[in-house]
Amino acid sequence: MKTLVVDMMGSDNGSKATAEGVLLFLSRHPETKIIAVGKIEELKSLEGKCELIDARDIVPMEAGAMEVMRMRNSSMMVAINTLIERKADALVGAGGTGAFLSAATLKLKLIEGVERAALMSPFPTAIKGKKVTILDIGANNENTPSQLIQFAKMGRIYSQQVMKVSEPHVYLLSNGAEDKKGSPEVKEANHLMREMNFPGFKGNIEARDALDGEADVIVTGGFAGNVFLKGTEGVATMMNNLIKKAFKRNLFSKLGYLLAKKGFKEMKETMDYKTTGGAMLLGVNNVVVKGHGSSDGFSFSYALEVAYKMAEANVISLIKEGLSTHE
Amino acid sequence: MKTLVVDMMGSDNGSKATAEGVLLFLSRHPETKIIAVGKIEELKSLEGKCELIDARDIVPMEAGAMEVMRMRNSSMMVAINTLIERKADALVGAGGTGAFLSAATLKLKLIEGVERAALMSPFPTAIKGKKVTILDIGANNENTPSQLIQFAKMGRIYSQQVMKVSEPHVYLLSNGAEDKKGSPEVKEANHLMREMNFPGFKGNIEARDALDGEADVIVTGGFAGNVFLKGTEGVATMMNNLIKKAFKRNLFSKLGYLLAKKGFKEMKETMDYKTTGGAMLLGVNNVVVKGHGSSDGFSFSYALEVAYKMAEANVISLIKEGLSTHE
Repeated sequence: MKTLVVDMMGSDNGSKATAEGVLLFLSRHPETKIIAVGKIEELKSLEGKCELIDARDIVPMEAGAMEVMRMRNSSMMVAINTLIERKADALVGAGGTGAFLSAATLKLKLIEGVERAALMSPFPTAIKGKKVTILDIGANNENTPSQLIQFAKMGRIYSQQVMKVSEPHVYLLSNGAEDKKGSPEVKEANHLMREMNFPGFKGNIEARDALDGEADVIVTGGFAGNVFLKGTEGVATMMNNLIKKAFKRNLFSKLGYLLAKKGFKEMKETMDYKTTGGAMLLGVNNVVVKGHGSSDGFSFSYALEVAYKMAEANVISLIKEGLSTHE
Repeated sequence: MKTLVVDMMGSDNGSKATAEGVLLFLSRHPETKIIAVGKIEELKSLEGKCELIDARDIVPMEAGAMEVMRMRNSSMMVAINTLIERKADALVGAGGTGAFLSAATLKLKLIEGVERAALMSPFPTAIKGKKVTILDIGANNENTPSQLIQFAKMGRIYSQQVMKVSEPHVYLLSNGAEDKKGSPEVKEANHLMREMNFPGFKGNIEARDALDGEADVIVTGGFAGNVFLKGTEGVATMMNNLIKKAFKRNLFSKLGYLLAKKGFKEMKETMDYKTTGGAMLLGVNNVVVKGHGSSDGFSFSYALEVAYKMAEANVISLIKEGLSTHE
């Protein structure tokens, strides 16, 4: 039986959304033990279904590492400490990313051989149902070639064990598909990965082709990865707003929407980030999943789902092995 | 009277598209002199309307700097040399970006005080008709803080003189809106721009907000800028394909398209990269515009339009002044 510790506080939609997410998850996995941490009076719907731990403080969305480490009674710190004390299998939170990542990294410590933890997320692709795993999407401001190779190793293990891709195609995000293209770090990482015959390494990929469904794992430094994540998110949001506007134009266009609705529902499912559940912090000594800040219950239940799958697949042990073997 | 030199060869759609573009441009600006360089037998439609220079070789799309410099009889090199010899006002090309940028930079030389040329393009924003100028979108693999500040100066001058924004809002692309967020180069550039009270500098902007219409100029290193350009382009293409698919689903959805068509036409216009004309190379001693590789006649005519406007506005002289004054 797996045990998941959940920081219930700090998301944009409050504890109502996270509690709904926990209940949804439990309806799918009734055998899992959930330890829910937060203001106990807001978690009444979970009574009898989870272990509840009361924590009165909420870490502000923009808190830095030092601030959160001092907030010992915050739901975030209590959740992290509970994870450690109870030797639980995974941590899920929905609060501020920066604080959550720093606190988790400082308390759980990096896996031996990992210089930097990476934030990873699956992205939708043009191939229906297929997702591509991209890391680092924002845990770091700069990365060395050897850090990029560690990310590639961790991403590959995740793709195999959780996404169930037997031989993942691994790429480096670059400004050109040719091996010689890229920032100095990317060029050097490409060279080293060619030299070591990194399994499944296919070379560089341009951002334009990242979501076409060819790649299973895309490795990038955290700065460019964050630009990719937020740039694509921004354009998708902008286009969604334009689609809504186009359909709302007049009576005819509204009727047009009714007629084309099913097709657009399919499109929404393809582009849906909600079933990706959130982002994972890879490289620390436990499973850590960060739900989207704007998670609703459905979306948050998938953050728990990802954490559960990672715990089931023993991803952390596999990463530890993977990093010590084909170095 | 302005003189524009045009490399007619090397675009995906051949000289037919570029010739169409030249004719379209001339219908709007009959007083402009065009020197068209390429295989003369393919440029019959321009006879009597432009000066034609025969050049038999075409630089391959993926040619490197050294390769193109050796191709003296290529339309690209002949066009660049003609620009220099004739003291023409601007150069427009549609061939391979890498080769075009390297050859133009090597032959035209950098403006004094500019360490690196930058590739710049206007992007559509959520505000109808408003575009944001983003640079560098791919001329460089890495940039120092002082190079980023030079880009900011050049982008600001372009925004004022060509986009006619009197007080442009200038931002640095980063992984967080706070001043302390970013890669080491971005952090330092932010610090320096605050210190020097860079005119219109508003701080960092996240990729998510880059196209919301607040910013007039966004400065980025070439590697992250290229990831932004191609990432947003990739998602926009993917969503356009999904929209087409949604409407083509069945008879009802096709009817739905007919009813909502006008709204989607408006959306297409908002997202249209064609009226942005292409990308400009800023920092060299003349106006250099690179049309999109997949330019049709309409789109290529706007690449000429941008070159014309830049020449009219004396952007190069203004950049020279701007870089020597508020250093």
